[in-house]
Amino acid sequence: MNDEDIKNLVGATLDHIGIAVADPDQAIRLYSNLGLVHSTTEEITEQGVKAYIFPAGQTRIELLSPTRDDSPVAKFLSRKGQGLHHVAFLVEDINKALLTCIENNIKPLDSVPRIGAEGKLIAFLDPRTTGGVLIELTQSVKQESKDF
Amino acid sequence: MNDEDIKNLVGATLDHIGIAVADPDQAIRLYSNLGLVHSTTEEITEQGVKAYIFPAGQTRIELLSPTRDDSPVAKFLSRKGQGLHHVAFLVEDINKALLTCIENNIKPLDSVPRIGAEGKLIAFLDPRTTGGVLIELTQSVKQESKDF
Repeated sequence: MNDEDIKNLVGATLDHIGIAVADPDQAIRLYSNLGLVHSTTEEITEQGVKAYIFPAGQTRIELLSPTRDDSPVAKFLSRKGQGLHHVAFLVEDINKALLTCIENNIKPLDSVPRIGAEGKLIAFLDPRTTGGVLIELTQSVKQESKDF
Repeated sequence: MNDEDIKNLVGATLDHIGIAVADPDQAIRLYSNLGLVHSTTEEITEQGVKAYIFPAGQTRIELLSPTRDDSPVAKFLSRKGQGLHHVAFLVEDINKALLTCIENNIKPLDSVPRIGAEGKLIAFLDPRTTGGVLIELTQSVKQESKDF
């Protein structure tokens, strides 16, 4: 992998940590008790999940609560119980990042990026190829310039 | 909990994420392939662990590899396999933070803080009282002023 490949990858920024929760009210109370502040809540219909967002410096904690029984987070909760679910890294170019992953035997779960929270492009990597860690790559979508 | 209590707690800074790894060389290669840079390695004898540290903006990823079979990370690996192990939040005053946790039914695993990586004071919270997440509280140790 050359320098250009690395530049296409994470840029060493942790975007967020996702935590699977069974009882959002209780979890919100817990992280508030730990001194974090619940800023916003976002429902991602396509993933069947509500994300309760707590900014933490340059990164954030997202408490993930399923909105339907067949969502990935609902399956995680019934298989593993509550706990750390995934980590997300910010990349400059998610399509190039996915290509670089494949070249390095890191298998994407999403071959084509999809729309995640806050309209960002996201793709998950197969934890069987990342030492058991569910890793999300995420790219901010550049705002189009507008003529006023 | 009043404002003073909250100030004693996290200050909303994620210090690091700990990831349990069985094969440190392979894990170092993986996170390097993801564009992160391995900066330092620290052995924490008391916890029976080597930590391979990757800075990621204001926070960092720590790959944790056991150095003996009876260490907490060795037990985690044999029970759960590789994966996300804990999250650590920076607090201003760890003793006050632990008291505030107890008042809010969050049970510390360490009733008295101990010395962790980089000489910081650390204490873990019981995941049975934190929604299945192993949370570490950590306080930077102020350097004594020196007369030269």
